[in-house]
Order: sequence, then C-alpha cells, then structure tokens
Amino acid sequence: MATHRFRPDRYYSAIGTYDPVLRITDGDTVVTDTLDARGEDAGGATLASGGNPMTGPFFVEGAEPGDTLAVTIDRLTPSRASGWTRSPLATNVVDPAFVRELPASRLTYWDIDDTAGEVRLVDPPARLQRLVLPLAPMVGCFGVAPADGQAISTATSAEHGGNMDYRGFGPGTTAYFPVAVPGALFFLGDGHAAQGDGEIVGTGIETSFEMTFTVRLRKRWTIRWPRGEDAEHIFAVGNARPLDQALQHATTEMLRWLGEDYGMDAVAASHLLGQAVRYDIGNVFDPAYTVVCRLEKRWLA
Amino acid sequence: MATHRFRPDRYYSAIGTYDPVLRITDGDTVVTDTLDARGEDAGGATLASGGNPMTGPFFVEGAEPGDTLAVTIDRLTPSRASGWTRSPLATNVVDPAFVRELPASRLTYWDIDDTAGEVRLVDPPARLQRLVLPLAPMVGCFGVAPADGQAISTATSAEHGGNMDYRGFGPGTTAYFPVAVPGALFFLGDGHAAQGDGEIVGTGIETSFEMTFTVRLRKRWTIRWPRGEDAEHIFAVGNARPLDQALQHATTEMLRWLGEDYGMDAVAASHLLGQAVRYDIGNVFDPAYTVVCRLEKRWLA
Amino acid sequence: MATHRFRPDRYYSAIGTYDPVLRITDGDTVVTDTLDARGEDAGGATLASGGNPMTGPFFVEGAEPGDTLAVTIDRLTPSRASGWTRSPLATNVVDPAFVRELPASRLTYWDIDDTAGEVRLVDPPARLQRLVLPLAPMVGCFGVAPADGQAISTATSAEHGGNMDYRGFGPGTTAYFPVAVPGALFFLGDGHAAQGDGEIVGTGIETSFEMTFTVRLRKRWTIRWPRGEDAEHIFAVGNARPLDQALQHATTEMLRWLGEDYGMDAVAASHLLGQAVRYDIGNVFDPAYTVVCRLEKRWLA
Amino acid sequence: MATHRFRPDRYYSAIGTYDPVLRITDGDTVVTDTLDARGEDAGGATLASGGNPMTGPFFVEGAEPGDTLAVTIDRLTPSRASGWTRSPLATNVVDPAFVRELPASRLTYWDIDDTAGEVRLVDPPARLQRLVLPLAPMVGCFGVAPADGQAISTATSAEHGGNMDYRGFGPGTTAYFPVAVPGALFFLGDGHAAQGDGEIVGTGIETSFEMTFTVRLRKRWTIRWPRGEDAEHIFAVGNARPLDQALQHATTEMLRWLGEDYGMDAVAASHLLGQAVRYDIGNVFDPAYTVVCRLEKRWLA
Repeated sequence: MATHRFRPDRYYSAIGTYDPVLRITDGDTVVTDTLDARGEDAGGATLASGGNPMTGPFFVEGAEPGDTLAVTIDRLTPSRASGWTRSPLATNVVDPAFVRELPASRLTYWDIDDTAGEVRLVDPPARLQRLVLPLAPMVGCFGVAPADGQAISTATSAEHGGNMDYRGFGPGTTAYFPVAVPGALFFLGDGHAAQGDGEIVGTGIETSFEMTFTVRLRKRWTIRWPRGEDAEHIFAVGNARPLDQALQHATTEMLRWLGEDYGMDAVAASHLLGQAVRYDIGNVFDPAYTVVCRLEKRWLA
Repeated sequence: MATHRFRPDRYYSAIGTYDPVLRITDGDTVVTDTLDARGEDAGGATLASGGNPMTGPFFVEGAEPGDTLAVTIDRLTPSRASGWTRSPLATNVVDPAFVRELPASRLTYWDIDDTAGEVRLVDPPARLQRLVLPLAPMVGCFGVAPADGQAISTATSAEHGGNMDYRGFGPGTTAYFPVAVPGALFFLGDGHAAQGDGEIVGTGIETSFEMTFTVRLRKRWTIRWPRGEDAEHIFAVGNARPLDQALQHATTEMLRWLGEDYGMDAVAASHLLGQAVRYDIGNVFDPAYTVVCRLEKRWLA
Repeated sequence: MATHRFRPDRYYSAIGTYDPVLRITDGDTVVTDTLDARGEDAGGATLASGGNPMTGPFFVEGAEPGDTLAVTIDRLTPSRASGWTRSPLATNVVDPAFVRELPASRLTYWDIDDTAGEVRLVDPPARLQRLVLPLAPMVGCFGVAPADGQAISTATSAEHGGNMDYRGFGPGTTAYFPVAVPGALFFLGDGHAAQGDGEIVGTGIETSFEMTFTVRLRKRWTIRWPRGEDAEHIFAVGNARPLDQALQHATTEMLRWLGEDYGMDAVAASHLLGQAVRYDIGNVFDPAYTVVCRLEKRWLA
Repeated sequence: MATHRFRPDRYYSAIGTYDPVLRITDGDTVVTDTLDARGEDAGGATLASGGNPMTGPFFVEGAEPGDTLAVTIDRLTPSRASGWTRSPLATNVVDPAFVRELPASRLTYWDIDDTAGEVRLVDPPARLQRLVLPLAPMVGCFGVAPADGQAISTATSAEHGGNMDYRGFGPGTTAYFPVAVPGALFFLGDGHAAQGDGEIVGTGIETSFEMTFTVRLRKRWTIRWPRGEDAEHIFAVGNARPLDQALQHATTEMLRWLGEDYGMDAVAASHLLGQAVRYDIGNVFDPAYTVVCRLEKRWLA
C-alpha cells in the first residue's frame, strides 16, 4: 500500500506493450504528472509530440489476462493556471449542410482557478463576458495495454479504454479495465479542467495535471469493456461508431454485470434498466465514440 | 384564455391533416384524455387499434406555416392504477451476437400509485422485490401535422415531433413545434408513468392519462425541429437514425437558437456548448431515434 | 389484359391512400406520363409543386393486404430532350471536414439523345468536353400506399417502396411491392435518364418520361420489403439509415425469399450468399438510404 | 527488379513497426507464402495463432512518409485444395430481431480446384448439390505500418489498409498504400479462394496461398486512404463504421484523386461521379467496414 511519486521522462501516443516505467502493487497509490493534449507540461514546455501523450505504463504486480484493474481517481489537480479549447464545433456534430456556416478552427485560452473551483475565458466574446463555469476535472484518456501486440492510438478508444473523454471520470470515480497482458500496463493523461458532453469542440479545457490514483487488482473478475462506479452510480462504457454501436456495447456490458454480480436474469435486468437507466455521451468526436450506460446504486440495494 | 374539457371519440395512428376535433385559441388550456399505447382507456376498454393512438387534432386559430406552437404540459394524471411494460431489452440495443441470450418478448404489469408518486412491479422477480421507482409521468408522442400532405405514423418521429419518447416531456415543460399547416393541428397521447433513457424495452410504463396542456402561438418564430424548455434548461430535439444524425439535428437546432435569440455567433456558441452542453437520449427504439441537446439557462443569463 | 393510355391531371408528393385515378386489373398494361423531380412536363411546363410528384394512384382490382403487386417496367422513354442534375456532391457523402471544399449548389443541363442512347452535358467543363454517357433510364420513385393511414413523402422510402433511386429499376425489371391497402394504390414518377450509384449529387439526370408498365397480382405472396428481378438476378431492397440498417433489411428479406421460395434453410442460404452475394447502393442521399441485396439466378438453378 | 522467393518463419496478427523480414527495392517482385485466416499452411499445419496472421513486413528501400507504395498483385495460387467458410450469416448483417432465427456458428469445407478454376462445397446441403462457383482469389488483408507507433490488429482496417476483405483485390489489381514509416513495412495474408460482397459469413473461402506481388514506389504522391486500379477501373477505399462513414472516406479520397491527377474541380468531378460512380461493399463484418468508390477509366480518357 505504498504511495509513489513518479515523475515521467517519456510519453507514448499509443497504448501498447512497452517497457514499464514503474512497478506497483495492489493497493498502491501513485502521484504523477500528465502533459496536456498537445504535449505541454506545467511550465508550458513541450515535452512530447503527437496527441494525448500518456504517462506510463505502470506494471501492476500479479495482473494477468482475465483479471480487472480497478483505478480509483483520488485527485486531479491542474498543474498550471491556463488551459485551452478549440472552436468552432466539430464538423461531424452538426448537419452536413451546416458545416459551411462554421468558421475555421482556432485555439482559445481559459483561466483555471483551482482554489475558487472555476474556469473562465481569457478573452470572452461579448455575449459570454460573465460566463464562469465550475472546475470539473476529469481524465480524458486512460487504459491498459490491449491484447495481440496491438498498440492503439491515444486518439481513439476501444475495449482497453483509451480516449473516452467522459466527464464522469473525475475524482472519486473508480474505473475498471480488462487486463489483457501481464502487469496490465496502465497509462493515463489528457486531463481536462472541464468538458461538456460529447467533447463537441474536439477538446475539453486542456491542461497539464498532477494526478493521484490508487490501483486495486480484482483477480478473475473478467470484464469486456471498461466499467466504473462512484458513490451513487455504476456504469459500463462502450467505445465504437456509430453511437448506436457504442450504446449496444455499453448496454450489453451492463447486462452482464447485473447478471453476474447482482443475480438478475435478462428479464429482471430489463425491468430495471427499462425504467431506470441513464445514458451519457462521453465523446462524439474521436474515431470511436463513447456511450455510458449508467444506473443508480439505490435501485440495486 | 378558455379552459376546454375535451372528451375524444376517435383516435389517429398517424399525425397528418385530418379534420380538427376542437378549435382553440392562443392561451387556451385543454384538459383531455389519452389512451395507452395499445388503445386502452381508463377503464381498460380498447377504443383504438394500432400503436400510440392520438387524441386530436386541435386546430389553433391563427397558426400558420412559419409560426411555432408552444405547448405547456400543465398536468399528467394517470387515469388508472395499472400500467404495462415489455421485456426483455429490445434486440437493437444489445450487441447483435447477444440477441440470442434474450428470452421472448412478454408483457409485465405495474401498479401506479399517483398519491404516493410511486410505481412498482405487480409480480416482481426475486431480485426486484423491493423496487419502488418514482412516478415520473411524460408524454411519449405529440406533435403537429407535417407539410406536403404527409401523415406520419405515430410509431416514429421527425421534424413535426411524434413518438420521441423523451422523459423530459413531463409536467412543467413547454414543447415547441414548427407549424407546417394552417391551424397547426396538434395531437397528443402515449403517456408513460415512468421511463428510462432510450425506452430500451420498447415501452415506458404505458397507461391512460388525463392530460392538461396550454397552447401559445409564437408568430413568425420559425424553428426546424422540436424544442423545449423547463425551469432550468432549454433544449433542442433531433429525430433520426443513427443516433449520430439525431445528435447533429439537435445540435444544429441549438446553434440556430443561440444565434437567433441569444446573440451568439458560432464561436461563442461553441465555447459555451463545448464545455457546458448535455445530451440526453430520448429513445433508441423507434424507427427514428431521439437525441436532445440541452443547456442550463443559468449560462445564458 | 387491357392496355390503358392514362394522361394524369393531378400529382401527389406523398404516397398514401388517395382516390384512385384509374382502376386496372391483373395483367393490364398502362402507358402514362411522369413529370420530372421538380414538376416539369415534356413541354417544360411546371404542373406540380414539391419534389418528385407522382402519377397515380392506380387501383389494382382484387389486391389486398398480404398480396404482392408485381410491376414490370416495360419501357421508359424520355419525353423531352433535356434533363438536369445538381452539383456539387451532396454534403453527406464526403468527410464532414471536406464540406467546406464544396461550392454552392447549382443546376446543370444535359442533352438526352434517345435515338443514339446517349446523354451529354450541355455546357461541359474543359475536362469533360468529350464525356458521353449511355442513356440508362430508370424509375427513381414508385411504390404502393402504406398501411395505417400513412402518407409518406416522395422524398423518402420505406417498406412500401418510394424514393429508392436505384438504377436497377430500369426497363425489363420487375419490381415487387407489399400490398398494404385494398387496391394496392400504385404510384410512379421521378424518372432519370441516367444515374450513378448512390445518387450522390442528389439527382440523376432528371427529366419527364412516358412510362409503360404491366401489373400482375401475386395473391397471398407476402413480402416485407420491395423485391425485384431481371433476366439474370433476383434482388431485395432495404430502405433506412444508416446504410448498415438498409443492408440488414435487404439481407433479411433475401433470406426469407431463399427460405420460402427456394427451400434453403439459413445455413444453405448463408453458404450461397456468403460467397456469391452482390450489394448495390441505390441512394445515399434521401432521408432513407437504399441498399440492394442481389443474387444471380444461375446459382439458384 | 529482382525476384525474391521468400519463405516466412514468423507471422504477425497486428500491422505495425516490426523488424523487416526482407529488404526489397522499387520494381522488385516477391513470391511468398501466406497462412489461412486461422494460421494453417499448405500442409494443414498450424503455424500461427490469432486471426489473419501476416507474412512480412517487407522493407522497401527509399520509402518515406508522404510516398505511396504501389503493390501489384501478380498471382494468387491456393497452396492447398481445401478451404473453409463459416455459417450462418453474421449477426450484424440481419435485422436484430432475426438473429434468433440463425443457428450456431460452424465451419464448412470447400474443395478448391485451381486447374478448373472452381470451388464447391465438400458436403453440400440438398439445395446446393450442384453449386459450383468460380475460383476468384483475392487478398483479404494487406497494408503498411501505420504512423505514431500504432500496431493495428489484422481483424480490422484503417488508412493503412489492413483487413479490407474486398474481392477487387485480385490478380491484376494494383493497390496503393500511404507510406507512414520509413521503408513502408508491407504485410500481406488472409487469402480467399472466393468471397461474396461484404464477407457476410465472416469469411471468404479461407485457404493458404502462394502470392506473387511487385512493388513500386511513387515518391511524393501522397494519398490518405488506400487506392487501387485494374485494367478498367480506378478506385478509392474507405474503412470505418458505419458504412456511411466508409463511403464518405472513399468518396472524398476519389475527389482528391480526380482533382490532383485528373484536373477536375469539385464541380466537374461531381458531374462525372454523380452519373457514373459505382460503389462496392468490401466487408460489412470486421470492426471497420470497407466501401469502395470506383470509376471506369474510359470516362477519364
């Protein structure tokens, strides 16, 4: 149950089977640093090229295919007072004929006030002079090395996790990933100070972070897609295009969970989900979209 | 500003240009009765065949193409103490290979306690013995006659509204529909005592209702897709398959709204939506799926 | 087995249950006129507003729900020497980010030489000075009245047929439609002098036609989606979005056909389709896309 | 312009940056062996695990990012007289509710007669006793190493090529791949003795092959998606889900090609494609589907 302070000196833009940077054990906590989505650190230095450079991989002793790695997000602290977003909306989230109405893409900067828990535009347009949004930090991209020698770009996501851009992955949430290689090989990065559903401008408020997480190993608890839970909900994640398929993956994974761990057959699970399920859209921007199938824990009591 | 008590004697399973059953005026309130999705009334008598039989159409004096009809849902009172759902999950919301795991479709009954504001299964499976869900009534299908002589099945939805099955259409919400024919010709029905996101068992808790609504006419306020608002949010609705396209419609409609009524150009709207938008999935069961693009009013102050 | 020369005096922009313009009998042939997609006749006069105005409906004596109407396209003769198309490509058939590269939509005219069997641009750009394409006439939109009082816009397609824009619907082909109302109520129009796969500029070469067709009634042969055949192939048609779903409908309909009429169980049909099926994309422009599942008759001998 | 006879001793189930097995030069021809999709060689020995094991990678001297690798498929000779398929149809190509009608998956064997150019079922069901299909060999999976350290599973496809399962990739066709890493690193395998459109049973007739191909390097000819040509056509390939997006990629790539190499602006290209384009569905089974946008060369003269 050690706490490690790990300072990365290299970063990956694909999640795959690389030499681990640190070996940790079930129950350990890691405090580490992540770059922003374009490779800048707390001081504004560019330390990596490519999108969403990852810190890691962390090798978890004893993790083997068929196990699940539980990662609790303990704390997400922006390591600088500035973040950036893009505008306008992504071309794929508006009607095709409306794309011509969208101006060219450009960067915009935001002030991040970690003490006040607020973010605001540095140079707001007239109509947004008084806009102050709550700081709501989240991990945009994290996951474990996939099977079969794959190395999956951090632009996208799949069964192993990856660039899911789901605002539910914030402090207090535990994420579950299906271990596919010995040691699990966990990566993380791409922190956002805030983000709307869908990441529809192609970014959250991108910045560097100090991230603290704790790993636990759930031996022989086999999952197919990432899952998660917080104080009030359990949820399952599907990553694919179109959204319909992501929703199918997430819903099927939730059915398996309710069946295996909560004793509900397909009929009982249908009664509950049919009238109580909630769906969230993680991102609708990346090559694979993300849909989350979520259920309140109080219905499971 | 009259209040009408209208008792229907015929029902439609398509939304089109039919003879109006009642002529009403801007500001009028109507109290009326709706059948459940298979045509049963408060006493359990089957009064219509076909899915989602509609009460209406109501002719709104002065409504013309280019106007918008605002319909405030004042009250939704279940008119009987029993509702029904289907199980298992719809075949299109699970992974195709998982369909074989689903048992055959069957009906299930729920008790509806309007006084306590609760619903519960009549004959719950063991694992759901203590499940009590909040009564959360909503209108599953409503809208106005479409243009060009179309009569659109109440199984589906489009620009005119229709079978959107969005749980946000509950008491206190005002829905906006684009008027396409003189008098607007408003229909409503298909009430649900409760429903999860997506209507993924193909039903909410289906029952008959007494519904009270108030119409207002917004002359020359031209919208392309249904919109809505409640005390805390404004939202725009897209109806299409796949979910991706429904989301494009809803997002584009929201951009138009922010531009035309809130003075935001595409860049300002992108800053706000990018970090603050919420998406809801209305239904992912009907021929056209429904996605809602929602924004808190406090960001518009 | 009469031949009727029918001259229309009204047109519909939705396919629904309207008063028939002519009553015909199993085996009858009809020679009639169709307007182009924007309502112009052989002389260039605009006789109808709205897209794809239909000639019809023709009432087929004895046709009842559960039957199938077989319509053989005997002859398609352009009734004027000029047709039109649109450019550029539709915004929905290119990558969203590429839409900005497309210029504004405009009309272009083509000469139609029915004798030579050729079409060519009236005012070709430099690079297409010598482009001569074969005249390949087809019916863009035809079908029968749908069930439940629906009237479906001729902009789109569904189980009843409609705006499928499939170039396989040319002379010599027999189309099959599922009868949903007494008399079938058959409509046709929207002829194209030529069209590429997908109708990706949103038009074929649109012109008015004299169309000759022969109807036959197949009593108690129940189909769910349009089918067709020519000398060498049988095919089944699915209309939906996305293309994936249209393909599912078409493939499922072909499986039913092989099972019911050719004695193949799912395994035999899979062996044959798996190694011999062909898919065509009818249109990828209209609200519902069209995919055709096609099989050579020689494999069925 | 050497000819190499290369005998592989290892295989990859991901396409990535691995040590090359052979260094070749612009104009060289390679004769090599490929395993079938489950790793069996000409003698039926299982030499690799995992799906679609690849022979390669071949390092092409001088190839650099921004170049294109042209691979002409000279000859595809089945190296054994037996192949296999699966039945029934894949669950994702039929209507979701129809999945329950499909029996469990099983293997079926086919005789391959290379001399006669025919394939037939070893143990045909009654209805297919006389079915003889033409031998039509093709490469199911081939491509070049992707950028950014990715290693992409041979189950799927992307900009780099991969598991496209397009029957147009047969003898006489030249495929073009965008070089993303020094040396291109070309892989190939997964030969099919025949295959219908869409690979809808999840396999072609899978067997081991001796494959002969010739590489040419097109310096500074930059493409984004695989392209190809044969004697009569040029074509562009898009790999994605849903089919709609694959079609967008393929169509956009064709527009670029017509613009850059054939001097057609978007309007001229639209006139030609609009009335003359053909679309093929490569596969509709793998994680990414494949759509091909094809044009006859005679229209480009």
